[in-house]
Parts: sequence; C-alpha cells; structure tokens
Amino acid sequence: MTLPDHPVDTEDSESHAALLARAIQAIAARDHFSAYPEDPQAAPAGAREAGEADFRTHLGRRIAIDADTEAHLVGESTGPWGEALDVRYPDLVPTTAIERAVAAAPAWGALPFEERAEVCMEMLGRLQARAFEMAYACMHCCGQPFLMAYQAGTAHALDRALEAIAYAVREMRSVPVRVLWEKPIAKGVVRVEKTFDIVPRGVALVIGCATFPTWNSYPGLFASLVAGNPVIVKPHPAAVLPLAICVLALQETLRGSGQDPNVVQLVVDTAAAPKTTALALDPAVRLIDFTGSTAFGDWLEANARQAHAFTEKAGVNPLVIDGTRDFDAMVRNIATTLCLYSGQMCTTPQNIYVPAAGIRTPEGRRSPDDFRQALAAAVARLTANPARAGELLGAIQSDATLARIEAAARAQGMTLVHASEQLVHPQWPQARMRSPLILGTSSDDGAPASEQFGPISFVIEVPTAAEGLRRAARRIETHGAISWSVYAADDAFAAQAKAAAAATGTHLTLDMTGAMLVNQSAAFSDFHVSGRNRSGNACLSDAAFVLPRFSILQSRRHVA
Amino acid sequence: MTLPDHPVDTEDSESHAALLARAIQAIAARDHFSAYPEDPQAAPAGAREAGEADFRTHLGRRIAIDADTEAHLVGESTGPWGEALDVRYPDLVPTTAIERAVAAAPAWGALPFEERAEVCMEMLGRLQARAFEMAYACMHCCGQPFLMAYQAGTAHALDRALEAIAYAVREMRSVPVRVLWEKPIAKGVVRVEKTFDIVPRGVALVIGCATFPTWNSYPGLFASLVAGNPVIVKPHPAAVLPLAICVLALQETLRGSGQDPNVVQLVVDTAAAPKTTALALDPAVRLIDFTGSTAFGDWLEANARQAHAFTEKAGVNPLVIDGTRDFDAMVRNIATTLCLYSGQMCTTPQNIYVPAAGIRTPEGRRSPDDFRQALAAAVARLTANPARAGELLGAIQSDATLARIEAAARAQGMTLVHASEQLVHPQWPQARMRSPLILGTSSDDGAPASEQFGPISFVIEVPTAAEGLRRAARRIETHGAISWSVYAADDAFAAQAKAAAAATGTHLTLDMTGAMLVNQSAAFSDFHVSGRNRSGNACLSDAAFVLPRFSILQSRRHVA
Repeated sequence: MTLPDHPVDTEDSESHAALLARAIQAIAARDHFSAYPEDPQAAPAGAREAGEADFRTHLGRRIAIDADTEAHLVGESTGPWGEALDVRYPDLVPTTAIERAVAAAPAWGALPFEERAEVCMEMLGRLQARAFEMAYACMHCCGQPFLMAYQAGTAHALDRALEAIAYAVREMRSVPVRVLWEKPIAKGVVRVEKTFDIVPRGVALVIGCATFPTWNSYPGLFASLVAGNPVIVKPHPAAVLPLAICVLALQETLRGSGQDPNVVQLVVDTAAAPKTTALALDPAVRLIDFTGSTAFGDWLEANARQAHAFTEKAGVNPLVIDGTRDFDAMVRNIATTLCLYSGQMCTTPQNIYVPAAGIRTPEGRRSPDDFRQALAAAVARLTANPARAGELLGAIQSDATLARIEAAARAQGMTLVHASEQLVHPQWPQARMRSPLILGTSSDDGAPASEQFGPISFVIEVPTAAEGLRRAARRIETHGAISWSVYAADDAFAAQAKAAAAATGTHLTLDMTGAMLVNQSAAFSDFHVSGRNRSGNACLSDAAFVLPRFSILQSRRHVA
Repeated sequence: MTLPDHPVDTEDSESHAALLARAIQAIAARDHFSAYPEDPQAAPAGAREAGEADFRTHLGRRIAIDADTEAHLVGESTGPWGEALDVRYPDLVPTTAIERAVAAAPAWGALPFEERAEVCMEMLGRLQARAFEMAYACMHCCGQPFLMAYQAGTAHALDRALEAIAYAVREMRSVPVRVLWEKPIAKGVVRVEKTFDIVPRGVALVIGCATFPTWNSYPGLFASLVAGNPVIVKPHPAAVLPLAICVLALQETLRGSGQDPNVVQLVVDTAAAPKTTALALDPAVRLIDFTGSTAFGDWLEANARQAHAFTEKAGVNPLVIDGTRDFDAMVRNIATTLCLYSGQMCTTPQNIYVPAAGIRTPEGRRSPDDFRQALAAAVARLTANPARAGELLGAIQSDATLARIEAAARAQGMTLVHASEQLVHPQWPQARMRSPLILGTSSDDGAPASEQFGPISFVIEVPTAAEGLRRAARRIETHGAISWSVYAADDAFAAQAKAAAAATGTHLTLDMTGAMLVNQSAAFSDFHVSGRNRSGNACLSDAAFVLPRFSILQSRRHVA
C-alpha cells in the first residue's frame, strides 16, 4: 500500500487536536472552511497512479476484511463506466456482526471521548491517504466523473465527517466531567460530588447509498463512532467497494490504536439476498443512518422503532424562475446543474417552473420558448463532445435509471425540450452515458408526481412565477424536497420565495449564475437536508444530528 | 391581584438578559445555582396571606381564561387536604385550541428568538410574583405540604424552566444568523450570502401530571415556547389549577408584550371525557411533553408518530445497601426519603435490597432485622405527631393511591415492617394522610413487579449486596427506573454499583446520609431522567431536550 503524503499527519495527535479545534470553530462560524485538499493535481507526483493501482488490486479479488471468514459473495459486477469489478467480500451473517458489535461496544464506549476523537481523527487521516484509491472506487461503482469522485468521495466526505465529529465533540465537551455541588442551607452546606458520564446509545447501523456512498455515510458513521457506538456499515449492493475501503482503513486504525477492529464492521449483501431489514430490526441496533429510497426510509422510520433512525430520502426539487439580471448566465448555470453527474444528486432540480408571461430580465421579458431553446442549446453545448461531457455527466449508476430515462421519453402529452442521447466516451466506450432528458409541459399534472432520479427534468409553464412557488410547495408537501432553487427578479419575489420555502421546510438557493450550483452543499457551511419535509427527518450535520447518539448518566455521592 | 416584590424585575429586560446569561453559565458548570428564592419566610410581610387570598378567589368560581367561551366544566372537587375546590374552567374543544394555536404560530415563530426569550423571562418573573398563590394551588391539588408546594411548585419549577430556556437559547445562538461564504477558486472567489433561520416545529402539547404539575411541565413548555412553538397545556384533571394559574400569567405576559395570548392555551378535560388523545393525534401537533403513566406514555410514543414525544413514565426505583459509615444517619435518610410527600415522587425508592449477611458498618455487620427495626422506628418517629408529619408526608393525591396502599397491605407472603396508618391532621382533619407502608420479603418475586406509586416500599433480603444490584438491574430492564440509590461500604462496591446503574441507563445516587435525599433533583445540576430505560425517553433538561423543538433552514444567494 502506497501512502502518499497528506496534510493530516497521522502520527501526530497534536495536529489532530488542532484540526479538530479548527473544525469546532468552523461549525460556529459556518463560513468557508475545508480541511482536505480537493485538487488532485496538487497531490505529489505518482500519487494518482499509485492510488489507481491500489484500486485495481481489489478487482476480481477477495478483499482483506474478515479474511478468516470462509463464506464470501461477489459484489459489483460491471461498473457504470464499463469496468469489470467483481470484488469478493466476506458474506457476514447479520447476527454474527451484531454479536461482534455488542462484544466490541463496552471497551469502545468506556474510552474517554477525547481519546475516541483522536482515533477518529486518525481514521480521517488514513482515509485521506487513500484518496486516489477511494476516488477510483467511487468513480467505478457510482459512475461519477473522476474529479467529482476525488472531491465528493474523499475531500468533501472527510469534511462532512470532520464536521460531524466536531458537533459531537462540542456537545460532549459541554457536559462537565465532575462537579462539586455545594448548597448553603440553614445548618451549613450540603455537598454532593457529581460525575457526568457520556454513555453511547448502542450498535449503530449505517446504510449506504449507490451514488455518494462515502459523502452520505461518513457523517452518521463518525458521529456514532466518536460518541462511543460500534458501527456496522451496510453498503448499497451496487457501491460496496468505497465503503469496504473505508472499513479497511478504519479497522487498520483501530488495530493500530489497540482497539477492537470490530468497532467498525462491513456487512455486504446483494439485491437478491438483502440483509438490511434483519440488521435494522435487531434489538441491539439503536442508531440507523440511512440514505436511499423514500419507501425504505419510511419503512425504517415506522418499523425500526427500537432505534433512532436518521433518514435522507427522495424529494422532488423545484426550480422556480421569476427573473434574473443575467439570462445567459442563469441558463448556463441551470444547464450545468442538470448535467452534473447526470442529475444523480439528491439536490438536482427536477421541476423547473417558468412564468407564461416570460422571465423578467433587464432587457425585458424572455418567453418560455426562449428559455426552453436556450436551455436545450446550453445542454447540447455541454454534451457535444463525449470526452469533455464525461467530465461533467459521468456515467449512469444503474440500469434502472437508464430504463427511467427511456420510459420518461415515451410519456404522452409533453413536448421534448432536449432529447437524451447515448454518448460514446472515447476512453470508456461501454460507459452508460446519456445526455439529459428535458421535457416541457404547461401542466403540473403532466409531470410525474414523484422523483425521477437521474437526468430527467421538466420545464413547467405556469401562469405566474408566484403560482410556480405555490405548485412547488404543494408538490413538496406530498413528496418532499432537499433543495429549492429560485431566480428572483427583485427582493420582493426573493422574500416571497423565502417564505414559501420556509413553509415547506426546504433550504432555498437564490440566483445562482456563477460557478456555484444549487446541487452543491459545502460542509461546515451548508446544512444538508432540513429534516422538515418528506425528503428526510434529519439534517447532516447539526447538533440535533449528533445528540441522540449518546446520553448523559450522572452519579452523585454525598460528601461528608 | 397583589404582586409581592420579587427579585426578577419584570420591567427590566436588562435583568432578564443578565439572569439568562447566568443560567447559560450554570448549565455549563452544573454546580449549585438557583435563581428563585425557595424560602417562603424570606418573602415580604403579607405576601403569603395575599397569595392565599388570591388562591381562594378561584375556588368555586369561573377562572378568567377564555372568559367569552360559554361552555365550562368543573375541575378538581375536593382536594387531598380536604379543601373544596370546584374551580370552573372553559370547556375548550381540542379542534378549536388547535386552530387557534395554528393561527398564533406564524407571528410567534417569526419573532426573533432573543425577543421570545425576553418574553419567556418575563413570564418566569410573573410566575414568581404569584409564588404563594401557586403554592396553595399545588398544595391543595397535589397534596404537597405547604413548603414543598412553595418550593417545587414555583422556585424549583422556575429554575427548571430557566434551565430549559438556557439550553434552547444556547443552541439557537450557536447558529450564526448570516454569513458570507467565500471560496477561492482558480478564477477568483465564489461568494454566497447565507442566512440561517431558526424555524419552530409546530404546535406543542404539554400533558401535565397530578403530583408536580408545574415542575414537570415547565421545562417542555418553556423550551417549546422559546423555540417559537405555540403551546397547548392539558393538565391532569386532578391538578388543573396550578397550570391554569400558569396559563393566566403567561397569557397576561403575552398580551403585555403585544403577542397573541393564544400562543399558550389551556385545554381542560375530565377523567370521564378525556381530550388528550384527540390533541396528541392531531397532525398539527408536532411536539408532546408528557409526564404520567407508562401505559399512556408508551401509547403516545407508538401512536403520536407525527410528533416528537418527550416522555417521563413510571419506574421501579431500587435502593441497594452494601454498607455505610453511619448506620443511623443512613436509616434516618432512607426513612425521610420514604416519608417525603408520601412516596409520591417519581424518584422515591420502592425496592430496598438488604444483604442477608448484614450491612457492613465500621462497628461490624448489622443484620437485616436490625435494619428493618431501625427503619420502622425512624419512620414511626417521623410520623408520630400528625401536625409535624404533615409537613413531611403531605396528603395522598388520589383515592387510587389510598386503594393501592390497602391492597398492598393485604398482600400474602410478606412480613410487615411498618404498617400504614391513617393520621388525623389537627388543621386538616379531612386530609388523606397515611404513614408509609413498608413490607419485607426475602424474594424479589414477592414484591410486585411494577411501580406501586405512593408510600409503599419493600425491604427485600438478598444473599449479597452484589445480588441486590443484579436483581435491581433485572427489574429496571423490564420496568425502568428514574433513580437508583446505593449505600456502599467501600469504593469497590461503589464502582460495581456505578457500572450496574450505567448498564441499565439509570442515574445513581450514593451514600446519602445528610440533608440531601435521593428523591431530590436540583435544576442546573442534576439531569432528571436519563432517557435510557423504560422510565422515559428524554432527560429534562439537556441539549437533546431542546433541539427537536426547532430546525435550521438556510437560504443562500449568489453574490456577484
């Protein structure tokens, strides 16, 4: 294993402490902060090649987790880019994993949380050291373009992990360890010595998703860990390798710190023989972090009642256009947003509401037709060259998304704004690449009610932009939304949009016309998911995301 | 209405801010702090008499809440001390209360939380000004002795309220209001202005209990209020008046601050025609604070799924004796603990485990017989004089508790350690006064499995004190416990006890031999209820108790 240099010195607990202190400042300030480098070109020479080689050692082989477990299963077969993966994973029985987690719990829970924090910081360092290996794993399992895989798979995921650790440590530090309580009474003073112990909740289950397995899993994983809970990681069957590499790195760190490696375990399953419900309903499982479908998230909330379940589910994200100071920049931004990772982000807009009377601009109103044509042209420009398009679109993660694009394209009663076409990447000719499908309708009912995950969006012509806000709000009430994008011609409409978004419990993004896209969510600054509509019940990360992971138990003793 | 002087100057927002700042320090330090005077004798001359007169104006009359609502019902009839109450309350229909709360929500939620905090601090001041009126209401509804009613009903309840406000304000302040996020990129800087709004959750329902209606209700009530949620207060039908006085004071404050008085409403029901389930299941109700029976608390947790329910239910509190440095002081402390408010506290021990081989003391082992005799004698001494006993025992809140004492006394297979006898108080000859019933058994199975609320306890002889810990733990696993008291002869046993209590998620109290009793829980220092066993799912108060009451919604805008 080649470990490239990285800014977090895994040997130095002082640097861990300093970074954690800086992260705790960052969650209070919530301005720009990032602890992990996001530019792969800044890495030392050879690091990328070494990381790719590390990634390739896993292909077609048995991964070195639970190496003594005989039973194994084959994970991902052919990835979205057409790469044959065929990694073999231990076929761990849920009850065995639970038993081991329960056995590992007391020692990990008894470690002072500051020591656990140090181990967790060391884990982040080890994951950073494997950034390129992880980037290739994310790229080939999830279909992300390489740069996104590098950034979202490691740098930004580690920022989110550090953010969650910072919240948990801040909250745990807010409870004193020991106090002497002295109350003056008529006949002197009553003295009671009190100790307040941080007590973890129990076994934590992290259920990964297929598109951002590390970014979405790390916050819950590390918040549970630092609070003293052993964690079972159950990846999506289509994106096992990134979380398997994570568990490898974490178990390595645990061994190196003299801790039981079973504090973090990997349970792999297949779509044909799923293990998630058995794990989720186990009485020992007291915490669940889930990213995935609304149906399964709802099921977890309703049935895994013994656990506190943090869910991020699906949503139908709206984009409402009232007006803009720069029509072309707006269109470019929206086109890029729709192309980015082929709409396979939980924050990608799906329903774009355009006022029939036109979009207000400094040069007058621009008609819905103008907008549709400009958007189609912008998307066409971004996807014209398959090699360059690949850097933006990536590949389609699952066949189900391909089928969804085809079904949507056949839908009746809508106009075609931009057709989804197969693109052949010169380097990855087998890649599942499609340009975005954009359909037009003048009726909200024309567009499907639920999330159409993938590069599928709808331009919906509405009588007024205000009516667009109302329709978007109604859709969110029934189907949820993680992001809400609005282009406002003036402050009055921005205020109206803000009130509408607030009423539905949705984070709002206004007037994106530059390099920033509505899909992007920055750790330490953007709160991801509000927990206030059907798209999820928790925000990652804030204080509420970490507190249910531990309790305070007091012990008091009379002092004579 | 006579308003006695009180230390919180209701006119002065600076003093509110200073007190809140001091309370926020106190929750971090968790050493002794109390903001409200607990000695009624320190009050100005005439204050007590004026407060009693205020209390008496309510008796047999219609209370001045919802004075325009025609329908009314009669609340408490004859109180535990034998006082005829017959207060009339508005008979508000649940749907009407919900509609009003929903209507009041936007303006209250839109008020900056610092302004809401000021209104809440003013509310505490007004409640403090009514301390004696409240004390008499608590005394005559709940059966508390006057001093306890004064302390727990106002001083300590307000301390708990202030503590909850402090937690909520601290957490809300930890989120910046507005930031400029500036990220350096290759071609310059991306600038995004972000605002983070505190968004309340929805209508809050507070379900009061019959024994400590204010102390148990204030934390949830004020935490929900300061976070911007309108609150519906649903008192226990047997203890309406204290919470009615509270709502009177809060509505007065709301009107005085230019706010909608329906931000806090009172919904009164009767045992014959309860309204709680209709309120709890209303989709608009998103927060529930409940203190009461395990059966109803479990029902709320399972059925009021649209809401976050904070529950404090019943438990079977153990007391395990290994040894003590002062046998007599220990026995006095335990006897006082059992007598205090006739065991009608959620923290009163029920099962007292004594080792068969004797209790270790500096003078050698004291036999279980010694202990039983000494305990019975100490209880007899404390209850010998009915007038003095009344100051400790108070009166029995409900007929159900009287019946429970009688049924327990008839139970087979146990020895009588101390018989419960009717006591006739010279001033309150009709009071439901009983001395504590203490039974003895050498089998854990001899004692009832569930909570025997009231002055009923069991001395259970066990082979060893360590076995006592194990039996107590097993009982907690099935029935929960809020407090666990242990007398340890040495540090080794204390450590064993601490581990046992921690494993069951129960707060531990060791070696109480002075003026402090295990039943007592001090605001700003003691965490009440762990949320970690069947006795309840939440601690009041800590950060986890306040965070589910609001969310953070962000709004971000590209800055050119």
